[in-house]
Amino acid sequence: MKIKSYAAPAAGKPLEFYEYDAAPLGEEEVEVTVDYCGLCHSDLSMIDNEWGISSYPLIAGHEVSGRVSALGESAKNKGLKIGQAVGIGWSAKSCLHCDACIRGNHSNCESGATPTILNRGGFAEKIRADWQWVIPLPEALDPTLAGPLLCGGITVFKPLLMSQINAMSRVGVIGIGGLGHLAVKLLKALGAEVVAFSSNPSKKESILELGADEVVNSRDAEALKAQAGRFDLIISTVAVDLDWKPYFDALAPEGKFHTVGAVMKPIQVAAFDLIAGDKSIGGSSTGSPGELRSLLKLAARKKITPKIETFPMSKINDALDHLRAGKANFRVVLKADF
Amino acid sequence: MKIKSYAAPAAGKPLEFYEYDAAPLGEEEVEVTVDYCGLCHSDLSMIDNEWGISSYPLIAGHEVSGRVSALGESAKNKGLKIGQAVGIGWSAKSCLHCDACIRGNHSNCESGATPTILNRGGFAEKIRADWQWVIPLPEALDPTLAGPLLCGGITVFKPLLMSQINAMSRVGVIGIGGLGHLAVKLLKALGAEVVAFSSNPSKKESILELGADEVVNSRDAEALKAQAGRFDLIISTVAVDLDWKPYFDALAPEGKFHTVGAVMKPIQVAAFDLIAGDKSIGGSSTGSPGELRSLLKLAARKKITPKIETFPMSKINDALDHLRAGKANFRVVLKADF
Repeated sequence: MKIKSYAAPAAGKPLEFYEYDAAPLGEEEVEVTVDYCGLCHSDLSMIDNEWGISSYPLIAGHEVSGRVSALGESAKNKGLKIGQAVGIGWSAKSCLHCDACIRGNHSNCESGATPTILNRGGFAEKIRADWQWVIPLPEALDPTLAGPLLCGGITVFKPLLMSQINAMSRVGVIGIGGLGHLAVKLLKALGAEVVAFSSNPSKKESILELGADEVVNSRDAEALKAQAGRFDLIISTVAVDLDWKPYFDALAPEGKFHTVGAVMKPIQVAAFDLIAGDKSIGGSSTGSPGELRSLLKLAARKKITPKIETFPMSKINDALDHLRAGKANFRVVLKADF
Repeated sequence: MKIKSYAAPAAGKPLEFYEYDAAPLGEEEVEVTVDYCGLCHSDLSMIDNEWGISSYPLIAGHEVSGRVSALGESAKNKGLKIGQAVGIGWSAKSCLHCDACIRGNHSNCESGATPTILNRGGFAEKIRADWQWVIPLPEALDPTLAGPLLCGGITVFKPLLMSQINAMSRVGVIGIGGLGHLAVKLLKALGAEVVAFSSNPSKKESILELGADEVVNSRDAEALKAQAGRFDLIISTVAVDLDWKPYFDALAPEGKFHTVGAVMKPIQVAAFDLIAGDKSIGGSSTGSPGELRSLLKLAARKKITPKIETFPMSKINDALDHLRAGKANFRVVLKADF
């Protein structure tokens, strides 16, 4: 079987139409016909081989919303049906049997979960993943909007799960873009007090509309200082180096500064800033199948939807340029048009 | 009333016999006759004014084991009796009514808990603290050995509480001295798998006797590397700058590196080392009255005792020199002999 896609021929190059011969479907694999695929900054990182793990031609894309079109032998009795609406996020495979997997923590699979992109991603007609990573879409969830929840959404949902955020929690979000706007919406849905830190004052009204209780200008040193001791959790979604100290100071006792942004410059923290007030600094990547299912159910029930712009997949290079230019408002979704 | 003590006349000076007129006992205060007082590195830091908060003459000492000798008006109906065996640790006062105190988290009192030393510490005949910080000693606990639990012990117990350590946990301890040896004993009592990281190979046998399952030479880069991915929690008790990266790598997914050592050089961590594996770095200081009570009850029931050397309080300068020289094995306790 031939599969049509858009692939990067080499690091940093524009994507090109690329058709390849699909291998026979693996035993544990599910084949999904792609309807929509979200764009994520990590697609750019993979296309550009920023992390040194890409191989070419590379088919990126890992925020897939589509329908099951084929099931491997072992995937036939796992609750998935041909034609069912499903999604696939950052990971496509994990071993299923190590301690981490067996506890439901597949994203920390001891053999390493296989990124969807390295298994051939969603900028394609069809995509494959092992059945446990193929997430059923709740009926109430608009399939157009499901994709960005599966990577962007879970990335900011995971810190909320790890810190057991609830309606008594006070949470700050640094950077209100593709990830941050979903963080604000999720926090609002959980009932938390949510404060957005944004370097762009012109975004203030739209951030309040997302559900933030307050917007703080992160370039205003005095305004940052005034937040001292306030937050149980601060999620940083930015991948640029900031002066983190005012954010550490903005934590309440037992508060956690949690980065999901892969900022390159090491974070520096004085031991005393952790010791005084029992504070911590952490990070996380995406989430496991159980967490993805919880997120989609919550999103369906609470109407948590990403704010998206759509492009036809045939205009994928325009869409990538739009994202690279920082113009995405807030998330870009491609509609398959092969 | 006159109270006899040993006080530092100025930063870094040997202690001198010092008698002072005690103020009338405060409403919330309890007066305790000191029988024993442990020595802690933070006594040296305060005597030397390393943290810039000391005032002189300074009466250090904050690991007190003694007996209630007087009760303030409001302290009379709080479960403490004249003659009762009690202990006092790092903190002597907190507001009792802020959100943190009312939740039992007195050590993070919003007005700041008052350190025992700044209220006049335990190198004295008598000492005072507010009733909630005067901790009843369980009968089964040897009063000679109670002091070091009240600061050294709680300092390493707090991380175990914060990370909910139990018999399934795998925990590393860096530095097996006054704090570290208590960490090993507590972890053994909780049933955890405990690995000691020590830079001193000659200590290996005595560390295994404390209950460590394994001792790793922290100067052996290969041995450190072999620990990759192993620990749910690593507690660092050292106040010197190390190469922390091998310890971050030694964390299992969702693992936490937790420092109780006030190392001066900022800790550097790459965001990626937190993101991959959902890891964190944290710290804590001491604990709250409820945690102190839990610790003493556990210590009494499980026979968790510090390994101590004793000096008469009249030889306090010898004892301080012994501690400064790094010769303490593992903790020093002074016996009051006024």
